[in-house]
Amino acid sequence: MGIDYSRFISSKAASIRASEIRELLKLTQKRRIISLAGGLPDPRLFPREEIAEAARQVALELGEKALQYSPSRGVPEFIDAVKRFLQRHGVAVRGWDDVIATVGSQEALYLVAKTLIDPGDYVVVEAPSYLGALNAFRHYDARFLTVPLDENGMVTDELERVLRRARAEGLRVKLVYTVPTCHNPAGSTMPDDRRKHLLELAEEYDLLVVEDDPYSFITFEEMRYTPLKTLDRSGRVIYTSTVSKIMAPGLRIGWILAHDELISRFELVRQAVDLHAPTLNQYVVARLLDSGAVERRFDALRSVYREKRDAMLEALEEHMPEGSRWTRPIGGLFVWVWLPEDINARKLLERAIERGVAFVPGDAFYATGGGHNTMRLNFSYPSVDEIREGVRRIGEAIADLRGGRR
Amino acid sequence: MGIDYSRFISSKAASIRASEIRELLKLTQKRRIISLAGGLPDPRLFPREEIAEAARQVALELGEKALQYSPSRGVPEFIDAVKRFLQRHGVAVRGWDDVIATVGSQEALYLVAKTLIDPGDYVVVEAPSYLGALNAFRHYDARFLTVPLDENGMVTDELERVLRRARAEGLRVKLVYTVPTCHNPAGSTMPDDRRKHLLELAEEYDLLVVEDDPYSFITFEEMRYTPLKTLDRSGRVIYTSTVSKIMAPGLRIGWILAHDELISRFELVRQAVDLHAPTLNQYVVARLLDSGAVERRFDALRSVYREKRDAMLEALEEHMPEGSRWTRPIGGLFVWVWLPEDINARKLLERAIERGVAFVPGDAFYATGGGHNTMRLNFSYPSVDEIREGVRRIGEAIADLRGGRR
Repeated sequence: MGIDYSRFISSKAASIRASEIRELLKLTQKRRIISLAGGLPDPRLFPREEIAEAARQVALELGEKALQYSPSRGVPEFIDAVKRFLQRHGVAVRGWDDVIATVGSQEALYLVAKTLIDPGDYVVVEAPSYLGALNAFRHYDARFLTVPLDENGMVTDELERVLRRARAEGLRVKLVYTVPTCHNPAGSTMPDDRRKHLLELAEEYDLLVVEDDPYSFITFEEMRYTPLKTLDRSGRVIYTSTVSKIMAPGLRIGWILAHDELISRFELVRQAVDLHAPTLNQYVVARLLDSGAVERRFDALRSVYREKRDAMLEALEEHMPEGSRWTRPIGGLFVWVWLPEDINARKLLERAIERGVAFVPGDAFYATGGGHNTMRLNFSYPSVDEIREGVRRIGEAIADLRGGRR
Repeated sequence: MGIDYSRFISSKAASIRASEIRELLKLTQKRRIISLAGGLPDPRLFPREEIAEAARQVALELGEKALQYSPSRGVPEFIDAVKRFLQRHGVAVRGWDDVIATVGSQEALYLVAKTLIDPGDYVVVEAPSYLGALNAFRHYDARFLTVPLDENGMVTDELERVLRRARAEGLRVKLVYTVPTCHNPAGSTMPDDRRKHLLELAEEYDLLVVEDDPYSFITFEEMRYTPLKTLDRSGRVIYTSTVSKIMAPGLRIGWILAHDELISRFELVRQAVDLHAPTLNQYVVARLLDSGAVERRFDALRSVYREKRDAMLEALEEHMPEGSRWTRPIGGLFVWVWLPEDINARKLLERAIERGVAFVPGDAFYATGGGHNTMRLNFSYPSVDEIREGVRRIGEAIADLRGGRR
């Protein structure tokens, strides 16, 4: 017998399907397989001692506040610590700005979507773009316009064409979503000329810009770009980030920095979602940001991730077939590979799993289709040996696939 | 100059207004005023040492897992600990059930609304009902049917009439939302005969039932009721709770216990909201539930809250005018007062603030209107002396209001 629950599910919730790729990759967890598919930071780099000590101190010393309900916007100590941290790292905090604490940057993106998107509104995204953002926008029935991306991030000349066409067609475009620095999934970073062009277009077409910036604090190369938030002089940029990559994702602490008028809207909306971000975790993060404990570890993070990235780039050089190209990320967790056009990355994944390696086929990251010959490779979680062996096996799987077609 | 952000706000977000009462009460924070308006647990009862030590140990010993991303449903250790805790306290966990970890019970209610409610669906709620739940349902354009409540909770004979009428009118009723034990805001607890009646009606009318249960673990009187979840034999009850009242709200850890088919839906939906609840906090809660550290403190919590409740009931007896009545809660944080019909509680609040005391006028808790002469009084946060003095001042404010009308 049992109840037929399907009658109770909202039409929106019923439209949400488990990702095929996620299901496929779940299967691989049961086998001994090298995964270049994840997006996890290296857990050996988590500041365990620092977090353990800060959590202990905060609970003991500030427990009456730190374990209590707290404002939906965040506790003042957290908000101030984030503002100081951002300013130390070149992210401008204007007089009109404020910060709201979120449950990771996923909640930041969700609040942006929920607060700004009406069904049918257009959002401009890169192709490829971050899946967590696409999903948040899809929950509010956004439509997408895509702009191609190369080693230097969003091709803003293409953005200009897309916006001109959208205006001619009378489409309601509200915002541009971008990961300008160490892109997920593509690993690219936009140079300043493109960033300035993007902001000029935002002015001309009266758009907001969401700058999703989880990775920029631990880039491996000399910093050669300016945050969009810093270039923006009129209040169009909604800046989001998180401690997931610089401290630990399990704390689930992120934030939005934007004009106070927008932050007030996010705050009202979030009261119905979860009241507020965890108070204890906000205090822990504030303490570690203010004490310098976070920044003192950046060089160690950089050197581990740089080594892993280098191992991946070398292995790609050795094992990818002619006609492939890939990004050379200055930070973040991913290298993006454009394979020759004849290779379908979903079919390749099946062969790769047989060879004992997994990656994420790139087409899922294209909001409006395309990218069948692309793949995302993660270098932050696997060891250097796994990276080398994993890429080697992908090379073999490509040969299998091409051989299989004869 | 500046940007007109209003053009970017979604119509749903634009419809969300800051609560007048919240704004009014904000003003009172600046003055020396006794607040019976809040809903905060007594922070002196937080298990600071236990949380401090558990957080330290978990971060040090399990850091690679406890600080990492984790499953959207929750970490297995948390899920298992919650199931064991619930079973120890008489909440049945069936073979078909599972648990999802949420960011407080607010997120549990939000996920229920987001996953189950299509615009125009009807939700049956008590009058009065919990504002956080009403707000979550309003985000998904639910409509409400209200059932009156007395000292024994929802009047299920009225529920039967409401459902019969709704069926005759062809309304699409999906679920009944209730706080059956130590109701917020009303402080009432439903006896088992009403609970059974409610579930019979859920069967007859093919409805789901949301049992919101933050308070039942630390009732002050002998337990005399059965959780709806335990009475339910067909899988209609969606049970939600939280550690906010038994440990600390600042951890933001709650959960839903329901049929696995529903939990799977909540899990898919929540991936776009915030990925998962904070991993570290789930491990801390699991440890404190499993070690018995939480339950060992229940008698202390009970005795403090019982003393405060008794002080409030005595003061009400002394200072409320003839024709008033109020609930005698066996747990929870609130006493609910029905004042004589001639008293408007919003007008009374203005007078009360002049007298240096605040409370929440009850009408906001009525989803479809009514309750102008009701108020919610919190006894968990203020001291016994503040409770006595606060209620005395409300008595004076009532005299002011009645005198002022002459």
